[in-house]
Amino acid sequence: MIRYKYHFKVRYKDVDQMGVMYYSRYYEYYEAARTDMMRDLGLTYKELEADGIMMPVVHSESDYMAGPGFDDHLTCITEVREIHKNRMEIFYTVVADDAPNKVINMGKTIHAFVKMNGKPTRIPKSLKLVLDNTWERV
Amino acid sequence: MIRYKYHFKVRYKDVDQMGVMYYSRYYEYYEAARTDMMRDLGLTYKELEADGIMMPVVHSESDYMAGPGFDDHLTCITEVREIHKNRMEIFYTVVADDAPNKVINMGKTIHAFVKMNGKPTRIPKSLKLVLDNTWERV
Amino acid sequence: MIRYKYHFKVRYKDVDQMGVMYYSRYYEYYEAARTDMMRDLGLTYKELEADGIMMPVVHSESDYMAGPGFDDHLTCITEVREIHKNRMEIFYTVVADDAPNKVINMGKTIHAFVKMNGKPTRIPKSLKLVLDNTWERV
Amino acid sequence: MIRYKYHFKVRYKDVDQMGVMYYSRYYEYYEAARTDMMRDLGLTYKELEADGIMMPVVHSESDYMAGPGFDDHLTCITEVREIHKNRMEIFYTVVADDAPNKVINMGKTIHAFVKMNGKPTRIPKSLKLVLDNTWERV
Repeated sequence: MIRYKYHFKVRYKDVDQMGVMYYSRYYEYYEAARTDMMRDLGLTYKELEADGIMMPVVHSESDYMAGPGFDDHLTCITEVREIHKNRMEIFYTVVADDAPNKVINMGKTIHAFVKMNGKPTRIPKSLKLVLDNTWERV
Repeated sequence: MIRYKYHFKVRYKDVDQMGVMYYSRYYEYYEAARTDMMRDLGLTYKELEADGIMMPVVHSESDYMAGPGFDDHLTCITEVREIHKNRMEIFYTVVADDAPNKVINMGKTIHAFVKMNGKPTRIPKSLKLVLDNTWERV
Repeated sequence: MIRYKYHFKVRYKDVDQMGVMYYSRYYEYYEAARTDMMRDLGLTYKELEADGIMMPVVHSESDYMAGPGFDDHLTCITEVREIHKNRMEIFYTVVADDAPNKVINMGKTIHAFVKMNGKPTRIPKSLKLVLDNTWERV
Repeated sequence: MIRYKYHFKVRYKDVDQMGVMYYSRYYEYYEAARTDMMRDLGLTYKELEADGIMMPVVHSESDYMAGPGFDDHLTCITEVREIHKNRMEIFYTVVADDAPNKVINMGKTIHAFVKMNGKPTRIPKSLKLVLDNTWERV
């Protein structure tokens, strides 16, 4: 398994009139978390796109257990639990830094691999390599 | 079943560098769609909140079949398929106005009913009433 | 002068914990307003881009006189007051539909004309034409 | 003068189909920058709100000189240049980390001080104190 911790703060722009983070904002932080996880693995998403591979989201979901407020310091634990040939599944668990045992939110995104012409393709070798290498290390 | 059609256009702010709508924006249009559906039913979400009832999202999900681009004219078909005592489930199907038989996106949100103090409660009578009445009409 | 009225509703996603529209959201509605104004003039921004012309924002500003809340029905009066050779200036005045004489917000965007290679260019003939034609009509 | 450097990365959600950061996103990063500047000064905006003082934006503006792309590493230099009795003016200069002498964007926000009942008030003592103290230090 690959695990990465992305730290962020809830911003005023994220909070609605209930005083908690608006439900779609989590997906934006999921994106930041998986982008930084890939850089940490040694392969940026920017490089993948430069190689002609895009990873559009084909499915996303989120479960909301608690409502974090403005300026809360949160961590999004980001995990790849299995390597698939034709998709990437990424799991997200959001906790507050001052209460790391209480899950605030859990989510998942599934990404396809497609070429610039939109045709589906397999997991690129460069990505498979860094995933395999990191797997061994952990 | 209750069904409402929400029409919208994809804005420049919604589109990413792949030229398609960014994955979290759908959730924002789901919100607009269910808000307008409730007004159409005869009970605004604003009135519900004024009555001390909030409907926080406890689950959201979305499946992406195609990528609509800037200025595409879309319709989000919004449905309530069953009335539940302690939650509301809303389904969304997004199609392009010029190709209404091809599904672009499908989603779902589940909402709890809570009082202003955060305590869970049952579906408010005012909401149950408008849902029941509309059900009979259709 | 060219004037267009864009109607919109404040969404839950737009409102912060003060209960009023967050300050950057106005700029998103300005975009929707000017896009629909151009379609109304007879030349969509999509067509302009297809002709190889982009209109990036080089300056934006906004003054906030009042704070509209969730589900408020607003109108963004969108104006072109002068035709310039190398830029387009668009003015925005936001009022509530139930109090049209009280200005909620005023804004302005300035747009350059650039070719797809990023080089600055003059106002495209197609745009100048629809502006001139509309001017005469009014 | 007070100066704070806020570091951030351009996210996929921020970039439009021209491949550059969408014009309203800068204002969201301005917010993050000033919030972190205040925490760095020793007085969080959250504490100010807890003390019954809000600082709504009454004016915002931005000038766009260059278009940063996805995953660019940027710094928003955030400055308070003068202390005013009834408002706070904050200036923002955005540069790329790998080209710190080329200004990408410059902006400004003006904030009023208001009590929870919406009435205008003077700069709160707690804020004046941390500003004065930091001024002396620099």
